[in-house]
Amino acid sequence: MYDFVRELFPICRSITGDGVRRTLAIIKREIPDLHVDEVASGTQAFDWTVPNEWSIRGGYIEDSAGHRIVDFADNNLHIVGYSTPIDATMELNELQRHLHSLPDQPDAIPYVTSYYKPRWGFCLADRQRKSLKPGKYRVVIDSTLQAGHLSYADYVLPGESRDEVLISTYVCHPSMANNELSGPAVAVWLAKSLMSLTTRRLTYRFVFVPETIGSIVYLSRHLEYLQQHVIAGFVITCVGDDRGYSLMPSREGTTLADRVAEHVLQHHVDNFTKYSFLQRGSDERQYCSVGVDLPVTSIMRSKYAAYDEYHTSLDNMDLISPQGLSGAYRLYSLCLRILEANRCYRTSGPCEPQLGRRGLYPTLSTKDSAAQVRSMMNFLAYADGQRDLLAIAEIIGVPAVELIPLAEQLLQADVLVAVSR
Amino acid sequence: MYDFVRELFPICRSITGDGVRRTLAIIKREIPDLHVDEVASGTQAFDWTVPNEWSIRGGYIEDSAGHRIVDFADNNLHIVGYSTPIDATMELNELQRHLHSLPDQPDAIPYVTSYYKPRWGFCLADRQRKSLKPGKYRVVIDSTLQAGHLSYADYVLPGESRDEVLISTYVCHPSMANNELSGPAVAVWLAKSLMSLTTRRLTYRFVFVPETIGSIVYLSRHLEYLQQHVIAGFVITCVGDDRGYSLMPSREGTTLADRVAEHVLQHHVDNFTKYSFLQRGSDERQYCSVGVDLPVTSIMRSKYAAYDEYHTSLDNMDLISPQGLSGAYRLYSLCLRILEANRCYRTSGPCEPQLGRRGLYPTLSTKDSAAQVRSMMNFLAYADGQRDLLAIAEIIGVPAVELIPLAEQLLQADVLVAVSR
Amino acid sequence: MYDFVRELFPICRSITGDGVRRTLAIIKREIPDLHVDEVASGTQAFDWTVPNEWSIRGGYIEDSAGHRIVDFADNNLHIVGYSTPIDATMELNELQRHLHSLPDQPDAIPYVTSYYKPRWGFCLADRQRKSLKPGKYRVVIDSTLQAGHLSYADYVLPGESRDEVLISTYVCHPSMANNELSGPAVAVWLAKSLMSLTTRRLTYRFVFVPETIGSIVYLSRHLEYLQQHVIAGFVITCVGDDRGYSLMPSREGTTLADRVAEHVLQHHVDNFTKYSFLQRGSDERQYCSVGVDLPVTSIMRSKYAAYDEYHTSLDNMDLISPQGLSGAYRLYSLCLRILEANRCYRTSGPCEPQLGRRGLYPTLSTKDSAAQVRSMMNFLAYADGQRDLLAIAEIIGVPAVELIPLAEQLLQADVLVAVSR
Repeated sequence: MYDFVRELFPICRSITGDGVRRTLAIIKREIPDLHVDEVASGTQAFDWTVPNEWSIRGGYIEDSAGHRIVDFADNNLHIVGYSTPIDATMELNELQRHLHSLPDQPDAIPYVTSYYKPRWGFCLADRQRKSLKPGKYRVVIDSTLQAGHLSYADYVLPGESRDEVLISTYVCHPSMANNELSGPAVAVWLAKSLMSLTTRRLTYRFVFVPETIGSIVYLSRHLEYLQQHVIAGFVITCVGDDRGYSLMPSREGTTLADRVAEHVLQHHVDNFTKYSFLQRGSDERQYCSVGVDLPVTSIMRSKYAAYDEYHTSLDNMDLISPQGLSGAYRLYSLCLRILEANRCYRTSGPCEPQLGRRGLYPTLSTKDSAAQVRSMMNFLAYADGQRDLLAIAEIIGVPAVELIPLAEQLLQADVLVAVSR
Repeated sequence: MYDFVRELFPICRSITGDGVRRTLAIIKREIPDLHVDEVASGTQAFDWTVPNEWSIRGGYIEDSAGHRIVDFADNNLHIVGYSTPIDATMELNELQRHLHSLPDQPDAIPYVTSYYKPRWGFCLADRQRKSLKPGKYRVVIDSTLQAGHLSYADYVLPGESRDEVLISTYVCHPSMANNELSGPAVAVWLAKSLMSLTTRRLTYRFVFVPETIGSIVYLSRHLEYLQQHVIAGFVITCVGDDRGYSLMPSREGTTLADRVAEHVLQHHVDNFTKYSFLQRGSDERQYCSVGVDLPVTSIMRSKYAAYDEYHTSLDNMDLISPQGLSGAYRLYSLCLRILEANRCYRTSGPCEPQLGRRGLYPTLSTKDSAAQVRSMMNFLAYADGQRDLLAIAEIIGVPAVELIPLAEQLLQADVLVAVSR
Repeated sequence: MYDFVRELFPICRSITGDGVRRTLAIIKREIPDLHVDEVASGTQAFDWTVPNEWSIRGGYIEDSAGHRIVDFADNNLHIVGYSTPIDATMELNELQRHLHSLPDQPDAIPYVTSYYKPRWGFCLADRQRKSLKPGKYRVVIDSTLQAGHLSYADYVLPGESRDEVLISTYVCHPSMANNELSGPAVAVWLAKSLMSLTTRRLTYRFVFVPETIGSIVYLSRHLEYLQQHVIAGFVITCVGDDRGYSLMPSREGTTLADRVAEHVLQHHVDNFTKYSFLQRGSDERQYCSVGVDLPVTSIMRSKYAAYDEYHTSLDNMDLISPQGLSGAYRLYSLCLRILEANRCYRTSGPCEPQLGRRGLYPTLSTKDSAAQVRSMMNFLAYADGQRDLLAIAEIIGVPAVELIPLAEQLLQADVLVAVSR
């Protein structure tokens, strides 16, 4: 996954343009059945209109001595996203109105965009900005902003049921590692893992979109189907660094996606930060909006807007690590494994079954009883046909994954039945 | 309001009689459309019967030297409310059976009544009582207890909707400031403020009654209408002193009146005491009784029966203050302002609206976002057509009054609709 | 009760056999209308089959010098329950495979059974076991394991209503005091107390069964009737020692049995341990199983599996006491008394009734009011026809038993009606 991020890192993505196309092409190399689609600028999607396509070829600031002191070729964050073209010479004080830097982080280049209002600008380290001397500067931005397309992709991996798990991630940031490319990397590796399974109960839908406008476009085309079939979904973002784990709940906080994500975090990592939906900031803004109401959460490592390097040039390959990515991958894998087994179960008859004659219960009664037997009896005690595997695991206080083989044993012993759901 | 209380203070009110009539006349001077009514003694009201009317003209205790040592003319608390007439001379030890004082508060004259059992008595400071010497005393009470009327008044200020806010207060205590006259003062000033508005969504009903028997009589005549139309109500009492704020919830504690009162206290004062309904003691006893079940609470300052001066001569003009009254007035005004705007709202479409093109969202995306924009986005996130303004304010964690102008902006921008309620 | 336990203590009970029959005969002496029944070995009960009947006449281990070093005649725990017959001589190391002892409790003889797999064995103190010298030992168990019957008994004491309280206890352990005989003793004395009442609103069902298989058999014969009529039930077990009190909730923890048991513990003992249903271990395993779902809890003193002497020879007459038994008896009596009165009540009309003219309210209004009057007014405030006596007591914060005479007064005063339930 880390190498995959490294390959994607240099590409200058935005919400439209060739950067997205090249990124989707690399994803398609890993997921051959990926379906890539485009919608034309001007297309209406709910309250929104698909904007013009932005093409950026280069740009720089040259000082009066002819030195390129800020250059897109060095770092694609240097140019404000969706900058209109310009080629002009101006005094420093006029140029200042088009510069963006972070006084509190003097060495970081900020990431700034202006998708829906035409303007141009440069981003640079505050330390460099402060060193600029009065005088004339030439500014060049070689970009085009005209009717084109917005690109996105999806991949549906069918299972026995049409009940779906939605996995959405975004592909619209330039060179940024944790808050962007960690998401597509983990999503692609989850897809590859699921593709290798011989049977799947659930259907899985992977969505790769530009953030906000992309998910709105996607929802405008699939809303009714998704509302009918998605039982749980995840926006995978910010899953690359080594720091703690965190959870973004859905709007109501009680969906299956909330339950499985929180259960996995509670049982499989030492601690995590549970954010409020008020602190949301990615595509759950759309997936959980009123009228969409999909059950979508995010398991993250360092959450967007909650770490210093966020939306700056410091969110780079040094910030993330193979361990960071694989830790998040493991938690999502656990979520999917539990969702696969998460049916409601019911005991076959009234009273406890006689597990002893089936070799599942000790034949000698002494003062002690094994933890495994306790879990099995407790599972049966709460298998009422109403509670799903997760609910029972929560009551018993054991990881749901540990109940999966027990449920299998009890099903085979005919003392348990799976209630369809 | 303080001057208004000062004007009403000297009048000797009881649950019937000219004291109530004079008080209602002064209120009518402020609220010209006040509707004053009377019901005859002997009238049945649910389980109760309107008692005889009590007229008190004077009374005193005279010692053997002919000095009037206790005199109604000095303080109308000196005579037990509803005392039967007497003119007799007796030994101190016989008189003692008719005297009431408070050993723990030696300088306070207690307030004592006997509405439903004929008796006579005097109240005096315990210090004075202890100084009485054996000997003969003449006791005179010049009162009449005979068929007459019980007086009360109401005032209905109509709005666009027949949904009503009920404001009830009582007018049956003699010279007592916090636990009586602060209530009518704040109620009258709220009525005057509402009268001055050009439009009102809600209808407001102000009720001025003798406590207990008066609210029972009022309910017996209006119960069905009130049950159909009152959406929130307040018993305004004990709102005059400078000490802390407090809340008396309704019986179930979950009505709109509970929600708005608690929200206002939580957001607009530093701290407050939330009492249990088990500590009730005013007309919420009737309004919240089984079979009446109106949504009625009280925001108070020092609650009846919870401060030392309660029901004594120390509950006087020194105990209350203009600041005390205006503090309570401000909180009730906030409640009414929120209730006016407290509809359910729903976003116009799925997904977030594009606020940027309406000038409601910054066009430049940087790391920061303003609190105002956050509140607006959060309001939209929870505007699901089920939650009212108060519920959304509680989730977002901001004062509901701050959401009122935001809701107005969003309604005008056509991204929000008000769901009738 | 203590003497009754002493009489039953020496009998060697198991889940079948003459020990149970003799025990039930002694119970029938106290409850003449006890109905004793038997079911044949091989009978199917849900997932279970009634096992062969076990008859034990004696058994011992004899050392090479001819001394009986372990003898059933000394303590009936010495032989593993349901041991098959044997008469053989063997080396110590072979014998060891059939010995059971507790290294952590070197002086305690453990209680071990093997109901559903044929084997034989001896239990002895670990100190004695360690003293055994290599050599030959003769082992004799004079038992029979063959088709016979399983015995159990019940007793139904009818009341005005067919709503039932179920009281179940077990009679299948050999000489053990707290975890066995305390239960039948308290159950029998509760039955005797109820028999002496001239009127009872509720019907009471007492069940005496071998644990697990006995309750399963009983449920297989009465399930539908019990599900229709039992409103609360108790498994009475471990109610004999002097240590703290404890509560085993039902599976869902919200039944009437849970509510009354927890209320009584909260108001009538200093403190208690509330266990989780995950720590269950007696017949609530069956009564609260999915598909049975009866409202059954246990008030206990030291809970099975939670005290050192449990299932050893130390659970004897010294562990329990008359005080221990009577303390538990008192709490169950309180539960039954509350259940008898636990109807829903409703005030006769809107608003508070005028209690003064009925002599139930002070005629003189001063600053104070009595606790009794407060409870009465609070009871009326929450008597909404939906809440039962227990629910009102919980809200008011007073013991439910104190509300019983108040409710009676209010019913007689015609200000309250009992809503049938």
